[in-house]
Amino acid sequence: MRFQYGRILQDRLDGEHGLPRRRLDELARRFAAVQAEVQARRAAGEYGFYGLARQEQTVRQITAFAEGLGQAYDHVLVLGIGGSALGTRALLSALRPPAWNELDDEGREFFPRLTLLDNVDPTSVAAALRRIDPRRVLVNVISKSGGTAETLAQYLVVRKWLDDALGGAASRHLVFTTDPVKGALRELATREGIATLEVPPEVGGRFSVLSPVGLLPAALVGIDIAGLVEGAARAVERAGADDLLQNPAALFAALHWSADIQAGARLHVLMPYSDRLRDLAEWFRQLWAESLGKRVDREGKVVHTGPTPVASVGATDQHSQVQLFMEGPFDKLITFVTVTDPGEDLLIPASDGMPEEVACLGGRTLGGLLQAEYEATSAALARMGRMNGTIELTDLSPQSVGELLMFFQLATGYAGCWYGVNPFDQPGVELGKRLTFGALGRVGYEAPEPAPDADTDMV
Amino acid sequence: MRFQYGRILQDRLDGEHGLPRRRLDELARRFAAVQAEVQARRAAGEYGFYGLARQEQTVRQITAFAEGLGQAYDHVLVLGIGGSALGTRALLSALRPPAWNELDDEGREFFPRLTLLDNVDPTSVAAALRRIDPRRVLVNVISKSGGTAETLAQYLVVRKWLDDALGGAASRHLVFTTDPVKGALRELATREGIATLEVPPEVGGRFSVLSPVGLLPAALVGIDIAGLVEGAARAVERAGADDLLQNPAALFAALHWSADIQAGARLHVLMPYSDRLRDLAEWFRQLWAESLGKRVDREGKVVHTGPTPVASVGATDQHSQVQLFMEGPFDKLITFVTVTDPGEDLLIPASDGMPEEVACLGGRTLGGLLQAEYEATSAALARMGRMNGTIELTDLSPQSVGELLMFFQLATGYAGCWYGVNPFDQPGVELGKRLTFGALGRVGYEAPEPAPDADTDMV
Repeated sequence: MRFQYGRILQDRLDGEHGLPRRRLDELARRFAAVQAEVQARRAAGEYGFYGLARQEQTVRQITAFAEGLGQAYDHVLVLGIGGSALGTRALLSALRPPAWNELDDEGREFFPRLTLLDNVDPTSVAAALRRIDPRRVLVNVISKSGGTAETLAQYLVVRKWLDDALGGAASRHLVFTTDPVKGALRELATREGIATLEVPPEVGGRFSVLSPVGLLPAALVGIDIAGLVEGAARAVERAGADDLLQNPAALFAALHWSADIQAGARLHVLMPYSDRLRDLAEWFRQLWAESLGKRVDREGKVVHTGPTPVASVGATDQHSQVQLFMEGPFDKLITFVTVTDPGEDLLIPASDGMPEEVACLGGRTLGGLLQAEYEATSAALARMGRMNGTIELTDLSPQSVGELLMFFQLATGYAGCWYGVNPFDQPGVELGKRLTFGALGRVGYEAPEPAPDADTDMV
Repeated sequence: MRFQYGRILQDRLDGEHGLPRRRLDELARRFAAVQAEVQARRAAGEYGFYGLARQEQTVRQITAFAEGLGQAYDHVLVLGIGGSALGTRALLSALRPPAWNELDDEGREFFPRLTLLDNVDPTSVAAALRRIDPRRVLVNVISKSGGTAETLAQYLVVRKWLDDALGGAASRHLVFTTDPVKGALRELATREGIATLEVPPEVGGRFSVLSPVGLLPAALVGIDIAGLVEGAARAVERAGADDLLQNPAALFAALHWSADIQAGARLHVLMPYSDRLRDLAEWFRQLWAESLGKRVDREGKVVHTGPTPVASVGATDQHSQVQLFMEGPFDKLITFVTVTDPGEDLLIPASDGMPEEVACLGGRTLGGLLQAEYEATSAALARMGRMNGTIELTDLSPQSVGELLMFFQLATGYAGCWYGVNPFDQPGVELGKRLTFGALGRVGYEAPEPAPDADTDMV
């Protein structure tokens, strides 16, 4: 992958907005301190996700586990939320092998189908359970802490559904991915002899896609997880560069921080020109928002900081968000992701005697049209004074996707330093969790204040 | 539906942020002028979407057309992008009947399946065409102008696929939804005798979900479209109120404008606590962004205005965006949507001897947990000084969904007046369209500038 950043710099733009090119020198000088901070914090045990670039043993274990299941299951049901779901969804959308819909000689699919439940909406859960055969399902329950209320509620519902159908055999249809020692899931697994995989304690939930959290579901549907880790290692290698201009993840972070703080671009848009990367943009949204949106900085000073990430997809959102990006406030930095080789392409048939706007499409391919639309949108935004950069992927191989995922995680780690915040905590969601337990009547928890008076504040 | 706005007002919040309650009086006084402007513009032919609340004849026509097809097709393939796709997707997700997966006496489904292609990504298009049987498909091509490049490209590809499989019968598998007179699709339909439905010329693309654009696909999968229109009429009726505090759509618009301009809330989040409304939030995103994101106001003054809408979903995004909403900058106004009766619910089995955080869930329902999470999140945000409102739906009936869709369209129309912009144009996307034609080599069109120098601005 390559990161093209020329259109973020002001002297490439017509207007007054954007970053002046000289800002790069300033950022490059200050980068030494950022790189040193990351190294020091790694040594102190933070930034554990770097370790996911080297995990030959885990890959072997998971591959063996997935192969050992053979064709015993034709459906994988993943229960998780947030960091236990978004990365898996991103992997599946990007890499689900084309053989997905093919059948083997006996008319059976090579790889199990996968359903991911990441909410407690009863209509989604009920629909999934109606569709899936409990005798042929493997249920992967994922919670790093082991105590996520939504996931435990899903588990209790699904467990009863399994028990009703399978009786004592239910526990053989379960795998828990959770903390090696702590939490409710770990306790249940030990008590009932349920198979488990471990989330490394030093890896935060939203940084865990390349841990067993994402690797097991990926392996079960036939994705080459060794390739993913290989790509991640490449990203970590490039993040070793002490020169900012040679370190793509660090440069992405520095430019985004500078655009936010020094040029008012508080909105960071990620817009892949690929349907298969739509869910990866949603994964990035959690990573960037939860890691950088903070009340206090590392020194405890109240700062209320954090850019708002926006997930978008091209060419589709040219007919939705791009009007605002082109003409609205100068408060956005847009990063496109392009895929040079989409893997397959379709010819747009030549069409003589057609109206002119149709005729000019004939003989092109859909992939060529998509690329032309990206080029036009990127250039048009630049001409309107709108900062935009591009991440170019050569293809959507496991290596490329693994590199991209790790690239964004590395960038998030660097951005934490620029913003001066701890990118690995999420204190702002604790109050909501406590009030949820209060609303459920759990002893010792305060209930939320009732909604405002319906008579006066409701229409 | 009811709109609960008490937590948007500052005296309900602990902090210094939000709107003071006295602002309501000021907005209510100024509303007379806004209501008068809307009436005047309606009389002058703008705001054509109001007419979608009364269209008995269209509903009868479309219902008859859908019924006439009977079970001739088991798959509907919709080709469209932007306003020709987002509304249809919102309708289907919210209302696709529970009978969807049921079979009739002969083992056939009651309603055809529906696939919506809203991009030119070749991998999505190719996968859809592999999955669908051309002999059993009805293809609905939707473009208001009839000249949308992406949709025409899809059409050419799909048309060849139909021709190859069906020969001369291909045109009987096509329905175009487009302008009554103009455009390439209209020209092709006339030439080849393809069935058509009309998009009323006075209704803009992003306001067209309740026109034949959305109504035909909805009717084909068995959604009660008369109920949708009935709900829309209810919303229009309530928008007749000249008292701002009795007019929910007008109040939503006024508070959002005021929060943006007078309290710095430039981000407008829509967060339904329902998986089935996730796509409706995406539809809202286009409606709000394209209508309000503008370079110039009605007088032609350069303003570069427009809030950024953000689509979210609860409880899922409590584990993704909510950390930023709770602790980040005070630049957001969040609107929740709750559904009182989810239609079906699932009991969380009681679980004796479980860890305490698990045990407190037992005996509740998933729907009850979802509601508790909404209440906790809404209250926690308010306590942190974060403005939030709630739209309460009683259920997800066609009437409720029709009312909600029209409510947001009405609110957008009102917001145009508060922002002083034309909510019905999208001049900012024209440059990109022209440069796309340039990139495709169409005569008379300028090609986009090439990307910046790879040697210096690429890593």
